[in-house]
Amino acid sequence: MCELLGMSANVPTDIVFSFTGLMQRGGGTGPHRDGWGIAFYEGRGVRLFQDPRASIDSEVARLVQNYPIKSETVIGHIRQANVGKVCLSNTHPFVRELGGRYWTFAHNGQLADFHPEPGWYRPVGDTDSEAAFCDLLNRVRQAFPEPVPVEVLLPTLVRACDAYRQKGVFNCLLSDGDWLFTFCTSKLAWITRRAPFGPARLRDADLTVDFQAETTPDDVVTVIATEPLTDNEDWNLQQSGEWMLWWRGEIVDQGRV
Amino acid sequence: MCELLGMSANVPTDIVFSFTGLMQRGGGTGPHRDGWGIAFYEGRGVRLFQDPRASIDSEVARLVQNYPIKSETVIGHIRQANVGKVCLSNTHPFVRELGGRYWTFAHNGQLADFHPEPGWYRPVGDTDSEAAFCDLLNRVRQAFPEPVPVEVLLPTLVRACDAYRQKGVFNCLLSDGDWLFTFCTSKLAWITRRAPFGPARLRDADLTVDFQAETTPDDVVTVIATEPLTDNEDWNLQQSGEWMLWWRGEIVDQGRV
Repeated sequence: MCELLGMSANVPTDIVFSFTGLMQRGGGTGPHRDGWGIAFYEGRGVRLFQDPRASIDSEVARLVQNYPIKSETVIGHIRQANVGKVCLSNTHPFVRELGGRYWTFAHNGQLADFHPEPGWYRPVGDTDSEAAFCDLLNRVRQAFPEPVPVEVLLPTLVRACDAYRQKGVFNCLLSDGDWLFTFCTSKLAWITRRAPFGPARLRDADLTVDFQAETTPDDVVTVIATEPLTDNEDWNLQQSGEWMLWWRGEIVDQGRV
Repeated sequence: MCELLGMSANVPTDIVFSFTGLMQRGGGTGPHRDGWGIAFYEGRGVRLFQDPRASIDSEVARLVQNYPIKSETVIGHIRQANVGKVCLSNTHPFVRELGGRYWTFAHNGQLADFHPEPGWYRPVGDTDSEAAFCDLLNRVRQAFPEPVPVEVLLPTLVRACDAYRQKGVFNCLLSDGDWLFTFCTSKLAWITRRAPFGPARLRDADLTVDFQAETTPDDVVTVIATEPLTDNEDWNLQQSGEWMLWWRGEIVDQGRV
């Protein structure tokens, strides 16, 4: 299994603190030694850092930890391989362009007997996760040859996720850089930090940050992770079959299949 | 205008030496202050490092210089903006998936009055370069709904490049990770290094490398750049209208339109 990390914020925010916690699980406090990746949106552009190496041994992970990239939408992942060998092309998150936006996707779980029809989007690697992402994009493209607002897309996204969960475990993060969509079948936790901000202490490393010193009173920052990353805050748990649509740190739509 | 950097090699090779030379031109010895990017293929995967900042001021550029990523195919670019503002989504190289491979593209030049028909691939940013890349991919997809060998593709690639050069200056590097295609309308230089290897001295920085100490006798490494990067070697110049197809460091096909 793998671990997911997502962020949706109303102001460009760095994710160094949460990333530091997650990276410990990549071969340190956790067994996810088979690579990691993180995508930061910057306007319509996306910066993707990936490494098939364990995050605690990764030079690129050290760069990301020491270089606070600010972003409103982030999708990260550390991998413990089940389907697909350990290599760069099997490393999440995956990125594809659809309708002139970069869509980014990361998956936690495993799909059994999953063989979607080949379409326009095709996997480069051999994971079930990338196959599901390509299938989801093919469904969107088939339903909407021209770009549509996310409210119009939502039923297609939810139906696709509902189909995948019939095949196994499917927790995912998906974004076009503007909105962030989360779907849970087993494990997904989230916390929204807003004023009054307080201190947060990582579970996986000896690190505490006082968000009050780093934020303004209007900031809204949601962090989503497979397991809560801090031990002194109350995280919410997404339920099985529950999906949420995030925009600038807030839930703008949600439901359950 | 911008500067291009490409590499095709028969063995995973680091491009630190050439990259160090190119980076000096990004605000140091050259005026290309409007971002830089470099894509390294690793198997079928691709690592993309980009920064809209000048390369000489870029933390990410320093990482790439200090962290010798070995690859058989590399495409790099430093930008001096003409069309499109300075931002991440306008930073070369551009990447899209086609037929289950990541295609990577970088362009030096400028196209006037260029408004291709919108197709499946759409630009995320607003450069003429990304518009040309998307148009080229749309032509390939239209001609070949299923993946075909590069020999079959070549006439489509050459015809597309010939159409773009009618609109202005179009020097480009294009790869699917296996082959590297280069097209020249004004400036493109290349050098193939093979045994017996000798020392090479950068034009733009006080740096000499003795390739003999870093290679084996069977290595074949071609470097392609807008301007020669060293001052003690004989670089070849690609002619206007000339295209070349590279594979593992060697020219496997070439022609001129």
